Amino acid sequence: MRYELFYWPTIQGRGEFVRLALEDAGADYLDVGNGSEADELGVPAIVSYLDGDATPRPPFAPPFLKAGELVISHVANILQYLGPRLALVPDDEACRYWAHGLQLTITDLVAEIHDCHHPIAASLYYQDQKDEALRRSQILRDERLPRFLGYFEQVLEQNPAGPDWLVGDAHSYVDLSLFQVISGLRYAFPKAMAAQQEALPKVDALAERVAARPRIQAYLESDRRLPFNEDGIFRHYPELDG
Amino acid sequence: MRYELFYWPTIQGRGEFVRLALEDAGADYLDVGNGSEADELGVPAIVSYLDGDATPRPPFAPPFLKAGELVISHVANILQYLGPRLALVPDDEACRYWAHGLQLTITDLVAEIHDCHHPIAASLYYQDQKDEALRRSQILRDERLPRFLGYFEQVLEQNPAGPDWLVGDAHSYVDLSLFQVISGLRYAFPKAMAAQQEALPKVDALAERVAARPRIQAYLESDRRLPFNEDGIFRHYPELDG
Repeated sequence: MRYELFYWPTIQGRGEFVRLALEDAGADYLDVGNGSEADELGVPAIVSYLDGDATPRPPFAPPFLKAGELVISHVANILQYLGPRLALVPDDEACRYWAHGLQLTITDLVAEIHDCHHPIAASLYYQDQKDEALRRSQILRDERLPRFLGYFEQVLEQNPAGPDWLVGDAHSYVDLSLFQVISGLRYAFPKAMAAQQEALPKVDALAERVAARPRIQAYLESDRRLPFNEDGIFRHYPELDG
Repeated sequence: MRYELFYWPTIQGRGEFVRLALEDAGADYLDVGNGSEADELGVPAIVSYLDGDATPRPPFAPPFLKAGELVISHVANILQYLGPRLALVPDDEACRYWAHGLQLTITDLVAEIHDCHHPIAASLYYQDQKDEALRRSQILRDERLPRFLGYFEQVLEQNPAGPDWLVGDAHSYVDLSLFQVISGLRYAFPKAMAAQQEALPKVDALAERVAARPRIQAYLESDRRLPFNEDGIFRHYPELDG
């Protein structure tokens, strides 16, 4: 099966959580958004789905994944679909609901990180909501990051199979996603993250463990890995880092 | 199976999306948060899960559902679990991924509605972020509600099985959730919703269809249905209604 990932070009964005799973598994996939319009790829191919021309079940927004006849939208939904197929989640039902719940907590965290530079509207420029962004970012640094990241530290501590991975005794798509969040946060908030590192030894070790996985390492060094930038979710605006 | 729903007492909140599914199906369930501490229910019973005392897999936040040995967190995850068991989603795989994706879009909309009265921090009072709330609510009314609700109108229009329900030709948990969103928005933003009603004939009819379902009607008239209030997600602050 050749998977087709539909996501906006030029940013990692929410599509990156899906890319990391596909890359870690060495899956065959087409990155439609970063393809050429001459090949009937790129943004127009995405838009034809959003408009409902290409499917009677239009996604609300990218990312979405085409897998044969299936069109699946939302990161957590896509990863839940891919998990068993790419051996990125344990087999038993309890683990799958647990993994999906963790992924949805990551989804909430990612939305809060995005909203700290766009607390009023995604449709307005950062400069037009900077005062609000300064306020919200302070809350993110002081309250929300310790709460969310402390939660994942607790999940690792309490994992009956050991503290190496979030779900069971092997890596799963949730670990790949947590790695992405930590990488993005270190880019966007280097000072705040340095201040928290000591409280998060297991999260920190997990991120290193993921980065050392051979296919992830190769991916991160390839030009398929787009750099973090100030158009994505994780933006480095020094004034928001306290 | 007696399901146990864990959610904060006194508000509908995110727990209500789960309650509507359980009520519509006539399922046997215990509303733990609204129970009495003398019966080992109420808030302490919730907190023992969040603290990780009652389970090695602590939820990040309510709502969560206990179903036998399973503990499932996040509304969309819970509904995905309950859907097949309560006959609230079609059998085939494509419909289930589609229903879950729609539910996750509702999740995003609900977060935006919450954030319009708390755009800076859930931990601050509304009064301490009112200027920001005024700005964000205008965006919600002018841009986000037309975009989200117009999307659901489009989904109904494009449903190959007809425009009565969002997924296939029968009601599903997603319809119950959309009904809840519409009800809450009409409470919180009566003027903005009246202005949009004409553009949303199919969403409007769906909400009426859900409200007329006998078990839903009985539930809405019971004292198990908590009233909307200014501690929940959908708050009626007239100044935010434009």
